[in-house]
Amino acid sequence: MTFKTLGAKAAAALDKELMSTGAFSLDQLMELAGLSVSQAVFRVHPTNKGRRILVAVGPGNNGGDGLVAARHLRHYGYQPTIYYPKRPQNELYQRLVKQLEDLDVPFVDDFPTALKTADHVVDAIFGFSFSGQVREPFPAVIDAMAETEIPVTAIDAPSSWSIEAGPPSEGVGSNFHPDVLISLTAPKPLVKHFRGRHFIGGRFVAPAIAKKYDFDVPEYDGLDQVVEVGPNGLKL
Amino acid sequence: MTFKTLGAKAAAALDKELMSTGAFSLDQLMELAGLSVSQAVFRVHPTNKGRRILVAVGPGNNGGDGLVAARHLRHYGYQPTIYYPKRPQNELYQRLVKQLEDLDVPFVDDFPTALKTADHVVDAIFGFSFSGQVREPFPAVIDAMAETEIPVTAIDAPSSWSIEAGPPSEGVGSNFHPDVLISLTAPKPLVKHFRGRHFIGGRFVAPAIAKKYDFDVPEYDGLDQVVEVGPNGLKL
Repeated sequence: MTFKTLGAKAAAALDKELMSTGAFSLDQLMELAGLSVSQAVFRVHPTNKGRRILVAVGPGNNGGDGLVAARHLRHYGYQPTIYYPKRPQNELYQRLVKQLEDLDVPFVDDFPTALKTADHVVDAIFGFSFSGQVREPFPAVIDAMAETEIPVTAIDAPSSWSIEAGPPSEGVGSNFHPDVLISLTAPKPLVKHFRGRHFIGGRFVAPAIAKKYDFDVPEYDGLDQVVEVGPNGLKL
Repeated sequence: MTFKTLGAKAAAALDKELMSTGAFSLDQLMELAGLSVSQAVFRVHPTNKGRRILVAVGPGNNGGDGLVAARHLRHYGYQPTIYYPKRPQNELYQRLVKQLEDLDVPFVDDFPTALKTADHVVDAIFGFSFSGQVREPFPAVIDAMAETEIPVTAIDAPSSWSIEAGPPSEGVGSNFHPDVLISLTAPKPLVKHFRGRHFIGGRFVAPAIAKKYDFDVPEYDGLDQVVEVGPNGLKL
């Protein structure tokens, strides 16, 4: 038995529904999504494996989830560093940045150099709304994440991968295989190409909404905001 | 060594500061506060002690924290019931109610009757901005919470207590001694009159803000959003 997947269009419609009929605010959803990501990182990479977490942040909501995750990780005792080259003029993102600055979390401009002193990388560049070409300055960042030997955790999708079809057959991202993936609310079809540790997060979906969008809400334990599943979305 | 306390005026100023220079939205703070409360309830009252949690919700932010806590408790497998007699015309509270309705969480009008079948009560009626008289319909609710034998967890303050001076010397609340208190961000001066289990929650305060307001950020463990401290705010 595998978890049902949610394609790019369905994932976008679900997000819209959570914020309309579901009555969630984007602030609230992003806080819970980022919290899930921070818990998955804690699970796969406890602080005794090294505290330096480099977070590569993209221009959209996937990046926002990464900013929230970085804040929680800082509170857990990690030392996150943020690479955030394309910042939208959006009040929410500006606030998330300020919250990190208040915790003395450094922002850096040079990803490859920052990578040299990191213990773990979070790929928060692109999520389920990605399609088409990877634009500057991200190709070199994705290449660096593909080549590094330190573990990489991707949020919702390895950046550059097609949400439906998985890794591109050539060019940027064709050799990018993160070690860990955290699928938010439900795995995307690309999981059938993913071979690392796989978590589902986002413990806020009402059963009626999951039913409408035809995906499974996993069985979370205790207070956990994430649950580990099989690499291809297999139920463990 | 005890934790420093934060008086009513200082707590109000801190809240304002978190949302201005701290750049948090009320949605975000309430989500994190309610999450803390849900974790404290889980800690003192695991699901095997009974799943029926009755949440008494007041008209302000303390009530909002209770609504968020109820949603998380529902996701943990509890069966919360909400008593929410005075609902402000505020979009945020309306959204939090809708999120509970979508999880089939019942709202009830008769507190004493609901109490008869509850396993645990959360007092989310009044918080640090309370002063003066307890208005209708809350006196009877506080009396019922004072008299019940099932455990009661209060958020930030036992409702009806003076934030600075503790329980009133007579009348409503003079005999109200909840079993559990969760202080958000920092204990209030009333903790010196509190004799139950005491938690601090709100793992989002930057050290610089805590320093400015002269309170201590406790040492949280792992992923915990709450930490248990001594009954009078004693460091354990």
